[in-house]
Amino acid sequence: MLGRVNHVAIAVPDLSAAADSYRSMLGADVTAPQALPEHGVTVVFVTLPNTKVELLEPLGDASPIAAFLAKNPAGGIHHICYEVADIIGARDRLKQAGARVLGDGTPKIGAHGKPVLFLHPKDFQGTLIELEEV
Amino acid sequence: MLGRVNHVAIAVPDLSAAADSYRSMLGADVTAPQALPEHGVTVVFVTLPNTKVELLEPLGDASPIAAFLAKNPAGGIHHICYEVADIIGARDRLKQAGARVLGDGTPKIGAHGKPVLFLHPKDFQGTLIELEEV
Repeated sequence: MLGRVNHVAIAVPDLSAAADSYRSMLGADVTAPQALPEHGVTVVFVTLPNTKVELLEPLGDASPIAAFLAKNPAGGIHHICYEVADIIGARDRLKQAGARVLGDGTPKIGAHGKPVLFLHPKDFQGTLIELEEV
Repeated sequence: MLGRVNHVAIAVPDLSAAADSYRSMLGADVTAPQALPEHGVTVVFVTLPNTKVELLEPLGDASPIAAFLAKNPAGGIHHICYEVADIIGARDRLKQAGARVLGDGTPKIGAHGKPVLFLHPKDFQGTLIELEEV
């Protein structure tokens, strides 16, 4: 069921400083910041040969990463996103196996314009998992 | 400087349960457990098309993931490992840029038999970064 790792998302308190350290210290390609107000984040992509890392900074009052940053003020790895071919099929299989899908189970359109779902970290060893249909 | 994401490592309190949830709930290929006493972990690899996820369970009294699991008893994403072509060159560039390399700065032979270094999470937004020479 799981396909590629689409991205690893890191929540950061200061996107500009984070982008700069990936660019100048780690010598990585980092895209220009993109505000995604409907997702409550501003994002840059660290482009790597086989996948990407997304650096996320909260945007607006109801950012989905605000609570995480309140708990981890320096930032930290927030979630990992796996690609699936059929998100409804994946959801149904997961629910049948007893895994909790966040929200009402209806895929939402994610930051890449594709349907996504999040799985409860308590069912996956404290790891927030995003599934994205590609 | 940064190459492929070699792996994402997740610390787990119960490797057998974790392997089972990746296998049965997420439909992923998971290898048999491998004890690495010299690294203080038992590991399984979740094999994905573009990279791998490593699930790590503490092994022995001085496991490097014991403190993390004491703080995060359910488990969680522990580090991300990037490939570099020249680990000494990478280390020198990072030190010159003001980043802290853990330990004495001498690469150690990691769990894959390759030279590795870890970078201080405080210099990278709370993210523990491993560099592996490939």
